[in-house]
Amino acid sequence: MKKLFAEFFGTFWLVFGGCGSAVFAAAYPSLGIGFAGVALAFGLTVLTMAYAVGHISGGHFNPAVSFGLWAGGKFEAKDLLGYVIAQLVGATTAAGILYLIVSGKSDFVDIGGFAANGYGELSPDGYSMTSALIAEFVLTAFFLLIILGSTNARAPKGFAPIAIGLGLTLIHLISIPITNTSVNPARSTSQAVFAGVEYTAQLWLFWIAPIAGAIVAGFTHKALFDRE
Amino acid sequence: MKKLFAEFFGTFWLVFGGCGSAVFAAAYPSLGIGFAGVALAFGLTVLTMAYAVGHISGGHFNPAVSFGLWAGGKFEAKDLLGYVIAQLVGATTAAGILYLIVSGKSDFVDIGGFAANGYGELSPDGYSMTSALIAEFVLTAFFLLIILGSTNARAPKGFAPIAIGLGLTLIHLISIPITNTSVNPARSTSQAVFAGVEYTAQLWLFWIAPIAGAIVAGFTHKALFDRE
Amino acid sequence: MKKLFAEFFGTFWLVFGGCGSAVFAAAYPSLGIGFAGVALAFGLTVLTMAYAVGHISGGHFNPAVSFGLWAGGKFEAKDLLGYVIAQLVGATTAAGILYLIVSGKSDFVDIGGFAANGYGELSPDGYSMTSALIAEFVLTAFFLLIILGSTNARAPKGFAPIAIGLGLTLIHLISIPITNTSVNPARSTSQAVFAGVEYTAQLWLFWIAPIAGAIVAGFTHKALFDRE
Amino acid sequence: MKKLFAEFFGTFWLVFGGCGSAVFAAAYPSLGIGFAGVALAFGLTVLTMAYAVGHISGGHFNPAVSFGLWAGGKFEAKDLLGYVIAQLVGATTAAGILYLIVSGKSDFVDIGGFAANGYGELSPDGYSMTSALIAEFVLTAFFLLIILGSTNARAPKGFAPIAIGLGLTLIHLISIPITNTSVNPARSTSQAVFAGVEYTAQLWLFWIAPIAGAIVAGFTHKALFDRE
Repeated sequence: MKKLFAEFFGTFWLVFGGCGSAVFAAAYPSLGIGFAGVALAFGLTVLTMAYAVGHISGGHFNPAVSFGLWAGGKFEAKDLLGYVIAQLVGATTAAGILYLIVSGKSDFVDIGGFAANGYGELSPDGYSMTSALIAEFVLTAFFLLIILGSTNARAPKGFAPIAIGLGLTLIHLISIPITNTSVNPARSTSQAVFAGVEYTAQLWLFWIAPIAGAIVAGFTHKALFDRE
Repeated sequence: MKKLFAEFFGTFWLVFGGCGSAVFAAAYPSLGIGFAGVALAFGLTVLTMAYAVGHISGGHFNPAVSFGLWAGGKFEAKDLLGYVIAQLVGATTAAGILYLIVSGKSDFVDIGGFAANGYGELSPDGYSMTSALIAEFVLTAFFLLIILGSTNARAPKGFAPIAIGLGLTLIHLISIPITNTSVNPARSTSQAVFAGVEYTAQLWLFWIAPIAGAIVAGFTHKALFDRE
Repeated sequence: MKKLFAEFFGTFWLVFGGCGSAVFAAAYPSLGIGFAGVALAFGLTVLTMAYAVGHISGGHFNPAVSFGLWAGGKFEAKDLLGYVIAQLVGATTAAGILYLIVSGKSDFVDIGGFAANGYGELSPDGYSMTSALIAEFVLTAFFLLIILGSTNARAPKGFAPIAIGLGLTLIHLISIPITNTSVNPARSTSQAVFAGVEYTAQLWLFWIAPIAGAIVAGFTHKALFDRE
Repeated sequence: MKKLFAEFFGTFWLVFGGCGSAVFAAAYPSLGIGFAGVALAFGLTVLTMAYAVGHISGGHFNPAVSFGLWAGGKFEAKDLLGYVIAQLVGATTAAGILYLIVSGKSDFVDIGGFAANGYGELSPDGYSMTSALIAEFVLTAFFLLIILGSTNARAPKGFAPIAIGLGLTLIHLISIPITNTSVNPARSTSQAVFAGVEYTAQLWLFWIAPIAGAIVAGFTHKALFDRE
């Protein structure tokens, strides 16, 4: 139960901080934080919560990570469902509170795309579905290689949250223009719910591609690197 | 006494560095550091001073943190008053020296809002009082979850100042447009004193919301995560 | 073999993340990450993979680094060829996948210079061949001093990936306008292949200067600093 | 002798990386790194070299730091002269190579102010001599508090280069508009030599204020914090 609370708070913070920085601060006239600031924000949500509650739940905050750790032999299948539900509840609660705050803006009219993920017409810079599939697959696969490698018994102790958090920053530095960057089905779902039906219609990609990439990386890591 | 000096210097640095970067460098034409640079500056004041004097006073530099650590069972009630006074004196001294420096600018006319916090008319991007209350409450609560979690006996040793400092950077990346980001009543008070009466009239929110968020987080952490 | 896979994945990630951030996100209108974001991305590719697979292969991801470590007495000559091949294959595979993704952009016409390195006419800001030679030589030499120094037995344990990764960020902060920053022949080769013949004609400089700088630094470090 | 080489290389890197990023990359049209990028570059020169050669020479790279450590009881007076000379030679050599590279730019005419420090007419944003004196004094004093505190026996082991390097980043985030940020007489001298006589006429301030701030901080730290 303690673990599920940790996943709830961590995924709440990932969405509140990452998507929140995008919604509130990215495009503020002339002083806004831009994509680089949003990338830093997403990474720091994971860095901070991995140090804060990583020793409790392992600090997944992301269904794709839970699946990838299972494939890599570091997480039990029987815990998957609970973790994914806690992550979804945390992410959606955060999105709701973001909505509450942003609707208190004096010139608030409509939420537009919130910080939702998309491809084709809904890609920030017009990338196709195929480009989105490849990008989300490759990026989540490397995210898992970073997670599995930096938490390995032979890696330096205590540094994994830095590598993993800044790894998520890096992933956003690369790919916000492609899909608005998911690599996390819970984050995508939480935003699509508020962003409208054209976004929910694309949600399947942001479940399939990250989880597939994560599982392939998990098996690859186990086969290639995690042996004596 | 040594502890109070440490809190004085730490809170001085938080205001001098964080608010100073905002006043001097945020809006410099075309090369200015923007909100992202200010966010980094605030976080680095805490990261640096937590490594420098954290082993002396615990490195609070913020009345809300002192209250939250008390609620979390990590700080004694009898030390609260001394810490809060040292923090206020440090913050206000820093604001005075910032004022001295900025008044030596060749085109200096008026200090405007300094780096004060505000809501409604005084919110940088026009957020309501309710939005400000929610944001300051939630952000300070998570700040305390990060502090209590990363300094926990089960967390990796020595990394807490990184998690806490970069956590404050993250908080600013999210919320400068909402309230100019407080989560710290001493920082708010130090700026409002120089920014004028319309800002002091809003100071109550930047005491109530951060301290309430911190206390709720302290109790939550103790109840959920800090047990065997 | 495990080591060669680690070098393959690490160099893939360096090119996919570093050059990818440049191609996809640097110049996005008004919210783009600019040279500073690209600099951060390059550094974080090395920081993350050095924590993930550094304990397997040493985490070179760069032929100049392999040569420099050999000169510094930390890597055997007989392993050089295998490492360099694995790095080239990883880098080129990443460039191919980048090309695949970017060609799925709705307004895609031509790849232009991709993220290739160049001097003279092909220097981003018009620097001469001599300026490029000096810059690449000096920057790679210091990159090796950082690597050899921070991995030395007398340096603090576990921090080397931070120093090395952020060292690569620093190198890019300095020199993107000069040559688009190489310090890595595998990275340069992977981009030139796609960028066209005028770039491949300049590739010699991005093999000679980084490797020469690395070897000089290796011998210097051994002679000056690596003795009892 | 080994120590003097370490100080030579470290101070070379500080000037080559910090001032170089300012000269080459800060104001590049639309993609330039701005003051925030320069601030990051300065900090990373110290972070990287402190991990690389800090275990050899202590990693001062700055005459004010050497004086401050002497005042704080951590450095012997008899070593001051050698360190300061090595720092000045390193800084000036770096400035010469920067000049060589920048003069190979196709549209190079004149070096203007290079990355020199100044006040009054030569302050980037028009700050008076008094503002400059106060800022350089306070910032160098806190730089020394960070150095002396984070390298103290009671502080976490191995993290000092992060605190010190990012502390220098923070100092630049605050004060580039005021004086172009010195806190380091060797860095100031190296640039003034190339920037012209109006800058050398102001050099006295960038020796006096940083060294005075450093010495006051050294004595303060010893008196307040460095006792049992």
